[in-house]
Amino acid sequence: MGMENIRIVLVGPLYGGNVGSTCRAMANMGISDLALVAPRNLNMDEARMMACHATCILEERSEFDSLSEAVADCGAVMGTTARGGLYRQHARPPREWADKVLEVAQTGKVALVFGREDNGLDNDELAVCTHIIQIPTTIEYSSLNLAQAVLICCYEVFVASETYEPPEEKSPEAPSLLRERMFALWREALLDVGFMEPDKADHMMLGLRRILARGKLTEDDVQILMGMARQSSWAAKQSN
Amino acid sequence: MGMENIRIVLVGPLYGGNVGSTCRAMANMGISDLALVAPRNLNMDEARMMACHATCILEERSEFDSLSEAVADCGAVMGTTARGGLYRQHARPPREWADKVLEVAQTGKVALVFGREDNGLDNDELAVCTHIIQIPTTIEYSSLNLAQAVLICCYEVFVASETYEPPEEKSPEAPSLLRERMFALWREALLDVGFMEPDKADHMMLGLRRILARGKLTEDDVQILMGMARQSSWAAKQSN
Repeated sequence: MGMENIRIVLVGPLYGGNVGSTCRAMANMGISDLALVAPRNLNMDEARMMACHATCILEERSEFDSLSEAVADCGAVMGTTARGGLYRQHARPPREWADKVLEVAQTGKVALVFGREDNGLDNDELAVCTHIIQIPTTIEYSSLNLAQAVLICCYEVFVASETYEPPEEKSPEAPSLLRERMFALWREALLDVGFMEPDKADHMMLGLRRILARGKLTEDDVQILMGMARQSSWAAKQSN
Repeated sequence: MGMENIRIVLVGPLYGGNVGSTCRAMANMGISDLALVAPRNLNMDEARMMACHATCILEERSEFDSLSEAVADCGAVMGTTARGGLYRQHARPPREWADKVLEVAQTGKVALVFGREDNGLDNDELAVCTHIIQIPTTIEYSSLNLAQAVLICCYEVFVASETYEPPEEKSPEAPSLLRERMFALWREALLDVGFMEPDKADHMMLGLRRILARGKLTEDDVQILMGMARQSSWAAKQSN
């Protein structure tokens, strides 16, 4: 899949907590190569605490003195920038670059680069980037927390990789024959409990049909509804 | 837009830092209604620090004793669950529910509900939810940090709302006539600097054309390339 070819590069990170949260976000999204460029006195206890079950990513990080060294072996170098930066005009949202990341990662390394908490990436660092990423945010508050920015980029790549399989409804949609048997039982039950008179039954049943047609009904759902109807009829007959 | 109708509900949050990070993530994505259900001794200093410029969301939060009360006025109640939970079968990823959130929020309140850091949502709480959200993650590490989970859900709704306008390249793509003038200048410059012999020029220029055809070239780009060629010719002639 190439996820092992994707490197997260944090330039000049200041807070250990952010580095730890970055590790956890990476692990959630199947990315494990972390590089730090000139970290600034990180609180490693905080880093380990926030990394949670992803401390191995923290332990196995690499460290470099400059961005150029950290990305020297990378075919694509994608830098993140907030609104209004120098390269803003050329930036694209991460969803648009996600396929490009995966394509390059098939055969070589890709770096996703994130700037300092306080100052972002400087112009020399942006110049090293082959692509610029801008994460969609409101205009009013465009500055994401560092680990949150990493998460969004990793998430978009992970979703694009299509390794995630959404849960499947195991019960198939109920066929008409089964649905009609269920409505027949409810018609009987609603007459038995005295909810409607026989001459109003067709009309009342249209209301129930409308409610139950609004969403999908699985075979499991119909079995539950049939059980409820049968039991109601039985109870009504007991009390007579 | 309806973003003001979207409520983020945190059930039994334990860490102030997570609540603060949640506020910042909400502000980044244009959502401001925060409700806490039975918070557990939150460290409010940490909350304020992580909320950064979104402390107003923290200050204006509402608090409730139970989830039912927190979502009493909500038309749709979407609960988040990690892999393997009771309702897993019916869960959908947030990208699939995003349009539904916006549709309901046009006319009424919608709650996005997040469980405890340590224990998620219990079965009674999941029962109150009309929809279940599962955030795509690896199977190996499916547990997202609380604020990270909030961010992904808010981000998907924000992107679906199409309020974000990606940056636009201001310079139009260069038309063929301009590109051909640029290649003519480079042909001249490469002959002037002695990079190629006249009889090899056509072949060499094909290589340069191939390189410059690989991506889009704007009018601004072509102006830069023409300036480089003109200056190279000029410099070569000076030194002769």
